[in-house]
Amino acid sequence: MPGTVEDVDVPSASDVLRRCRELVRPALVDAVGRLHPWTGEMAAYALGWSDTAGTPEPGGSEGKGVRQALALLGAEAVGADAACAVPGAVAVELVHTFSLLHDDVMDADALRRRRPAVWKAYGTGPAVLAGDALLARAVTGLAGTPGDHAAAAAVRRLCDALNDLVAGQAEDLRFEHRPWDGPGAVGPEEYRSMAEGKTGALLGCALALGAVLGGAPEPTVAALDRAGRHLGLAFQAVDDILGIWGDPATTGKPVHADLHRGKKTHPVLAALAGGSRAARELGTLLASARPTDAAAAERVASLVEEAGGRAATRGEARRHLDAARDALRATPLTRTAARELDVLFAGLADRVM
Amino acid sequence: MPGTVEDVDVPSASDVLRRCRELVRPALVDAVGRLHPWTGEMAAYALGWSDTAGTPEPGGSEGKGVRQALALLGAEAVGADAACAVPGAVAVELVHTFSLLHDDVMDADALRRRRPAVWKAYGTGPAVLAGDALLARAVTGLAGTPGDHAAAAAVRRLCDALNDLVAGQAEDLRFEHRPWDGPGAVGPEEYRSMAEGKTGALLGCALALGAVLGGAPEPTVAALDRAGRHLGLAFQAVDDILGIWGDPATTGKPVHADLHRGKKTHPVLAALAGGSRAARELGTLLASARPTDAAAAERVASLVEEAGGRAATRGEARRHLDAARDALRATPLTRTAARELDVLFAGLADRVM
Repeated sequence: MPGTVEDVDVPSASDVLRRCRELVRPALVDAVGRLHPWTGEMAAYALGWSDTAGTPEPGGSEGKGVRQALALLGAEAVGADAACAVPGAVAVELVHTFSLLHDDVMDADALRRRRPAVWKAYGTGPAVLAGDALLARAVTGLAGTPGDHAAAAAVRRLCDALNDLVAGQAEDLRFEHRPWDGPGAVGPEEYRSMAEGKTGALLGCALALGAVLGGAPEPTVAALDRAGRHLGLAFQAVDDILGIWGDPATTGKPVHADLHRGKKTHPVLAALAGGSRAARELGTLLASARPTDAAAAERVASLVEEAGGRAATRGEARRHLDAARDALRATPLTRTAARELDVLFAGLADRVM
Repeated sequence: MPGTVEDVDVPSASDVLRRCRELVRPALVDAVGRLHPWTGEMAAYALGWSDTAGTPEPGGSEGKGVRQALALLGAEAVGADAACAVPGAVAVELVHTFSLLHDDVMDADALRRRRPAVWKAYGTGPAVLAGDALLARAVTGLAGTPGDHAAAAAVRRLCDALNDLVAGQAEDLRFEHRPWDGPGAVGPEEYRSMAEGKTGALLGCALALGAVLGGAPEPTVAALDRAGRHLGLAFQAVDDILGIWGDPATTGKPVHADLHRGKKTHPVLAALAGGSRAARELGTLLASARPTDAAAAERVASLVEEAGGRAATRGEARRHLDAARDALRATPLTRTAARELDVLFAGLADRVM
C-alpha cells in the first residue's frame, strides 16, 4: 500500500550509514586529534580524510562506516539514544582502521580503496606505529566511558573481539601455507572460524557495544553479537566473491588479487570440495603452481565458477544473512532500529546478489 | 652495625627480580597459552622461553622482568599482597614484549638479547601480528580484574601509558629525520619528552598499576607513577650510553649501533650542546655524513666523550635516579617494599655508574 507511513519511513542503507557517520564524526575527529601529529596524519589518510600531504580530501576515499553505524543502531535497537553509543562507534571504527593498516602490511596489499596503502605511502614501520596508536586510542576512548561498570563491560567486549580478530588474521596467514587438498587441506569449519574471527567478531562487537552502552541485558547483547557475527560471515563470503570476480574499479583492488596470492577463499575451497571434472582440473592446476599471470588466473576463476564455487559462496552468504536477520527477529528490539538494521544487512550482502 | 635484622633482610636487585618473576610466571604462561598457537610460539620466543622451533630454552634469553617486579612491589609498597598485582604485572610485561616486537620492526633492529629479533626469525608480518596479539591479551587480562572499579581504573592507567609509549616511539622515529643543529635540532626538552614516553611511561604504569590493584589512594598512585617515569628517564640515559660504549657481549647488540643509525641520543645531543672544539668537530662530522664504517663511528664516539656527552648523560641518569628515589621517599610506603624498590632502582642505573 503505497503512501503509508511505514513505506515513507524506511530509509536506504546509504541514508542510514550517512546519518550515523554524521553523528559519530565529531568524536572520531576528536580521537584522531589526540594522536601524535604524525600518527594522526597517517590515521587521517587511512580514514580517507586527507591525502599524503595532509591536505583534506573530503569524502574521497572514506569507508562506508558500517561498524560505527552498527554501534549506534545497537543502542537505538535497545531503546537508548544513539549518542550513548558514540564512544563504542569510535572504538570499533578505530580498531577497524588499525586492522586494515596492519593487515595490509602482513598481506603486502599495496592498494586500499584505490589509493596506496598506508605502508606504501608512509613506510612499513610508520604504518605499524599508526596502527598501534589507533588501537591504543580505541581502548582509551572506551575505557573513558562514564561509569565503571559500563566502561569495564565495554572494554571486555572490545577485547574479546580484538583477540578473535587477531586469531582470525593468524589463521588466514597460516592457511596460505596449507595444501589445497589432502589431509592438510583447510576444511569448511576452519574456514568459517577464521572468517568469523577476521570479519565477524568486530561487526558483532559493534552491535553488542551499542547495546552494552545502551544498558541492555546480557541476552540481548549476546543476540546482537551473534547477528553481527553472521553478518560478518556473509560479508566475508561476498568479499571472497569480489576478490575473484569483482571489478577493480569498484573494489579498488587488482583483478583476481586473491587468486594470485593463493588465498584459501570460500569459492575455491567450495569448488575443490565438489567432485566434478572441473574440480579435479582445478585441483591439478592449483597443485602445480600459483597462478601468477592473468591468463592462468582467468582459467582458475573459470574453473572455480564451473565447479560451483561461486554459487556455493553466494549460498553461504545468503545463509548467514538469513541467520543474522533471524537473530535480530528473535530479540525484542525497537521497531525503527530493527528495520534500519535489516535494510543495512541486506544492503551489505547485496553487492553480489 | 653488622648482623642486625635490617642488614640481613635487604636482598639484592637480582634476588628481588627473581622472586617477582617466579610469582608472575604461572599467570604469564597462562596468558601466552591463550594466544593463537602460532602467535603464542612467537611470544614464547620473544620472551626467551623457547627457540624458533618452539623447543624450550629455559632461562636462555629471558628479560630481567623489571616491569613485572615494579608492579608487584607497587602493590606491596601500599600494603597489599603481591598476588593482587599479578594481572598488572602480566599486562606490563606483555605490553613491553609487544613494544619490543614492533620497535624492532620500525627500527630494523635485527638483534634482540643476542638472538635474531622476531621479525628476522619469523618475518615482518608475523612479528606485527604477534605484537598485536600480545597487546590485545595485555588489555584483556587487566579488563578481567575482579571488580569493575579496579578493572576500569587499571585499564585507564594502562591506556595512558600505551598512548605515551606510542607517541614516544613516534617522536624517536621523527627525530631521525631532524638535523643535528640549527633551528630544527632536537632540544633537551623534546628529548626528555620522547624518552619519558618511550621508556618512562610503562615503568611508571607498572608501579602505579600495582598500587591501583592494591587499592591505594590516588596521590600514592601518582607518586609511584612519577617515580617510575624518572626511573625510566635514568634507564633511557643508561641505555643511550650502552648504545654507544656498551660491550656487544653484554648488550646483545652491535657496537656503536645508535651511531650507525644516526639516532638522536642524549650523549650526542649533550655533546653538541657544549661549545668546545670537540663539539664543533663532532657537529661538522655528523653534518657531512652518517658514520657507516667502524672507524668513523669510533671517531664520533671519541668526540662525543671528549665533548662531555658521556659525562652529561651519566649526570642525567643520576639526577633522574635521585628524583625517582625522592618521589618514593616522599610517599608513605611499607618499609620492606620501599627498600626493595630502592635496591632495584639503584641496580638498574648501576649498569654504567
